[in-house]
Amino acid sequence: MTAPIPVALLPHSDPHLAEAIASAGGTLADLAEARALVWIGNVDGFPDPLPDTIEWVQLRLAGIESFLRAGLLDDRRIWTNASGFYAENVAEHALALLLAGLRQINVAVLRHWDEKAIDPAVRSLHGSTVGIIGAGGIARSLIPRLNACGAQVIAVNRSGRPVEGASTTLPASRIDEVWGLVDHVVLAAPATDETRHLINARTLAALPRHAWLINVARGPLVDEVALRDALVAGEIAGAALDVTDPEPPDANDPLWDLPNVIITPHVANPSAGLTRTMAPWLAENLRRFTAGGDMLAVVRPGADY
Amino acid sequence: MTAPIPVALLPHSDPHLAEAIASAGGTLADLAEARALVWIGNVDGFPDPLPDTIEWVQLRLAGIESFLRAGLLDDRRIWTNASGFYAENVAEHALALLLAGLRQINVAVLRHWDEKAIDPAVRSLHGSTVGIIGAGGIARSLIPRLNACGAQVIAVNRSGRPVEGASTTLPASRIDEVWGLVDHVVLAAPATDETRHLINARTLAALPRHAWLINVARGPLVDEVALRDALVAGEIAGAALDVTDPEPPDANDPLWDLPNVIITPHVANPSAGLTRTMAPWLAENLRRFTAGGDMLAVVRPGADY
Repeated sequence: MTAPIPVALLPHSDPHLAEAIASAGGTLADLAEARALVWIGNVDGFPDPLPDTIEWVQLRLAGIESFLRAGLLDDRRIWTNASGFYAENVAEHALALLLAGLRQINVAVLRHWDEKAIDPAVRSLHGSTVGIIGAGGIARSLIPRLNACGAQVIAVNRSGRPVEGASTTLPASRIDEVWGLVDHVVLAAPATDETRHLINARTLAALPRHAWLINVARGPLVDEVALRDALVAGEIAGAALDVTDPEPPDANDPLWDLPNVIITPHVANPSAGLTRTMAPWLAENLRRFTAGGDMLAVVRPGADY
Repeated sequence: MTAPIPVALLPHSDPHLAEAIASAGGTLADLAEARALVWIGNVDGFPDPLPDTIEWVQLRLAGIESFLRAGLLDDRRIWTNASGFYAENVAEHALALLLAGLRQINVAVLRHWDEKAIDPAVRSLHGSTVGIIGAGGIARSLIPRLNACGAQVIAVNRSGRPVEGASTTLPASRIDEVWGLVDHVVLAAPATDETRHLINARTLAALPRHAWLINVARGPLVDEVALRDALVAGEIAGAALDVTDPEPPDANDPLWDLPNVIITPHVANPSAGLTRTMAPWLAENLRRFTAGGDMLAVVRPGADY
């Protein structure tokens, strides 16, 4: 039996993660004595510099732009985030938003039993084609859900290497072919210079008029002024956004008043109950660290992921 | 090559179904000359008596209680409805309602970016267990969707004969075991004397407090007074109803004002666009009729289905 791995759990204690660490053969330790750091806070207050004795840092977040910007990620240890765990949750939220839009649940909430407005506007996901922009963990979790609903998927990733379950995969260089091939679009790509305003007046005009746009990625992927114009003009059928730019939208943003918009307050990964749900994931990663094996969700600081 | 089957399409013409009939080897005919009747109206105006030369009647509806009550269904010919076609559509709506409730989309529509209220209330379908009451076509369509979302299913049917994809199937005689085993319940059973007020004060109290109740079947399955009380008391988390009793609910029904209720106006099978979506189904049934084979969705007038 090996000695327990000393793990620092910071910046505050958490019963679910403490139990996960113990269950996977770890023991809680101060940062100076630890070989691994589980950091469940935001970027503010992150220990800088980190002791060289920390071999692995597990972050709580999936999007770690703020850690990158702060120059905290180095190549002297392993950095992992929680993207795989989040992916299932975010994929579920994306499906919920898409179905809510197609099934006019937002309208039904506001207009009581208005079947004259709602019945002709209801659309079926079954038989449709959904484009997923960004073919990482969220897409891999979303594709089987969409396939089970009778929808085909066209995936777009950097390389164009076929994504399992997608009927077609296109490289990012051919993204403009997607808009005319799909019924609906789900954004699941990271926020980078390349993806900024990926959805703009031109791409919105190229989508079919019955299209719903779903954004569970990052607000800046969408030019929201162009989106408002397209929604008012009926160029697409609707938009369901869990992320916006800025976030939240201004209280007087016209998006709030459009009947074909659903906005949820960045809750695809709710923070409440998060550590309870994340605990088995952390335990698995600690077991892999102990065994010296491949870890889940390794962040590669140099890669523009 | 056989002569085209003469088919009457009544009480009004429809381009999608006319094309389906032609594509499957049929030809439009008057009722007196027809061997088959495709009736796309309601019970009012249905030809009574039917010519004895009509060997098959295809109805547009899935729930055909009104035809049964009017004594129109006889055993002198084949009667089919469209339950299989509807099942996919209704299953999709059931999933949309369940996900909308779990993901608090109804609250997000009413309360702009209120993450303090919404974030702690969001629940994940992934990892949960869903009870489906009634294991006909809707359940068979819903189960693979739920499984793809990472949920297990406990199905309840008359016989208890295992339903594919369900982790457990219980006979109706053991239904009271279900409430304590599931996280959420979907009602997909016909309206009969036995299923009336299947959901009542006792069964609601037996469900977990985080449960959502989804009704895509018929309003009378739920005792709505008991449901209101249970929702106000927090005995269950929420209810999403595409059917109510009466339908629509009174404008001053307290259900409308409860924050944890979603009501859609009986649009799981929207009537707009219905014949376009139903056309391939009709064509298949006409081909089966021509071949003398097993037809889809045969209604057996004597069976309490």
